[in-house]
Amino acid sequence: MGLGVRAAPFTYVAHALAVVAAAMVLYWCIHFRGGLAFEAANKNLIFNVHPVLMLIGFIILGSEGNAENSSTFLPRGFSFVCKILSILAAIMVYKVLPTVNHDTTKLIHLILHAIALVLGAVGIYCAFKNHNETGIANLYSLHSWLGIGTISLYGIQWIFGFLAFFFPKAAPNVRKSALPWHALLGIFVYILALATAELGFLEKLTFLQSSGIDKYGPESFLVNFTALVVVLFGASVVVAVVAPARLEEPQGYAPIPEN
Amino acid sequence: MGLGVRAAPFTYVAHALAVVAAAMVLYWCIHFRGGLAFEAANKNLIFNVHPVLMLIGFIILGSEGNAENSSTFLPRGFSFVCKILSILAAIMVYKVLPTVNHDTTKLIHLILHAIALVLGAVGIYCAFKNHNETGIANLYSLHSWLGIGTISLYGIQWIFGFLAFFFPKAAPNVRKSALPWHALLGIFVYILALATAELGFLEKLTFLQSSGIDKYGPESFLVNFTALVVVLFGASVVVAVVAPARLEEPQGYAPIPEN
Repeated sequence: MGLGVRAAPFTYVAHALAVVAAAMVLYWCIHFRGGLAFEAANKNLIFNVHPVLMLIGFIILGSEGNAENSSTFLPRGFSFVCKILSILAAIMVYKVLPTVNHDTTKLIHLILHAIALVLGAVGIYCAFKNHNETGIANLYSLHSWLGIGTISLYGIQWIFGFLAFFFPKAAPNVRKSALPWHALLGIFVYILALATAELGFLEKLTFLQSSGIDKYGPESFLVNFTALVVVLFGASVVVAVVAPARLEEPQGYAPIPEN
Repeated sequence: MGLGVRAAPFTYVAHALAVVAAAMVLYWCIHFRGGLAFEAANKNLIFNVHPVLMLIGFIILGSEGNAENSSTFLPRGFSFVCKILSILAAIMVYKVLPTVNHDTTKLIHLILHAIALVLGAVGIYCAFKNHNETGIANLYSLHSWLGIGTISLYGIQWIFGFLAFFFPKAAPNVRKSALPWHALLGIFVYILALATAELGFLEKLTFLQSSGIDKYGPESFLVNFTALVVVLFGASVVVAVVAPARLEEPQGYAPIPEN
């Protein structure tokens, strides 16, 4: 029953890949695409904010938000960064000892997802701003459709989670039965976000290649490899979220050591 | 602990979406793109075999293959179609009663994945054939990279599974510890296949739109909606595979009825 591998190793892989993917998308947008700007005569610089914020702000930060919600449905994962964030937030918000309790992790979950949502919205705004200032059509591609769907579901999920689990909070039995659906929709939205990112890499690169950059050149390779790293990152996050923190032992009930 | 929803409803949703997606991709390739052919003066007809075989042959049939492997790691799912397939295969291969045993489901799993692999390989061959006969570059896009990676991992996974679990079969303790990794890699490859399909829809439609079809016209909408159905199909398959057949009852050990 259940996924027969432990979550922990996948969280470490996920963090390493997140750092690599973030560095790669920054290198692409700054070195190859000329940098980032909210206002510029070169409208491409406005567009460049889009992949950076969607990957680092929305996907990676959103992954961290699915974190050490230790007494809820997703009992583990993202232990390293979230342990630190948990402790910091616990000091700032609740002024408790470094022992992280459930309310704290829930608050961090909520705040990280809110930040991811805001950064995602700003990132999408930059894509529209670039299109509108250069006369490119909006919302015709699969990338845009999936993207709008993803961030809408993400927002609905956040509001629902806030109302049901934080304030004013549903009755305990309602919370209990709503929690697995909350987690499931979360995983679904996360997979959608990953698929949307892949589509974005391919779409942008296809446009660049059709306007002249080498199909087998360094920029094409960088973008494709960034997309591959994001695939591996996303898969490791999904596995970490779905896998149990510890394996069940069918022969008995003795707990298995965590290492 | 574990995914707190049952698998069964997701398998029904997955089957319904599979039928819809298959119908949509056929309608696209036959009605809008002129039909399918292995040899033709109109090279586009050769290409059209690619999306049809990849979606129906590789992804949908491959999903069915992750099926009612009832006493293994993936204990449920795809019950309707696979029950029928299981029974048919049981009659043909083992001449046993309709009571499906573990060896039978394993054999079906193995055969369905082999068929999916062959159809996938033929589908990829048709894309290369189209490219080569029309002078289009090969293997520069993220779609092609992920696609080659996916089918390669799929093949490795099949060979490994055949050797470890079917013939000559590893020792029981090796099989036991290899099984969760086999299932995990399977889910990973499946997510890769879905992502690759989405990329394929977007890439092909981007080329068609840049050579003149209406960005907001019926064909664009059909392809985008097909891709959305595939996303929902894939997510429901992943949830069905990961979710338990029955929920655990933390208060005691009484089994929960299946319905």
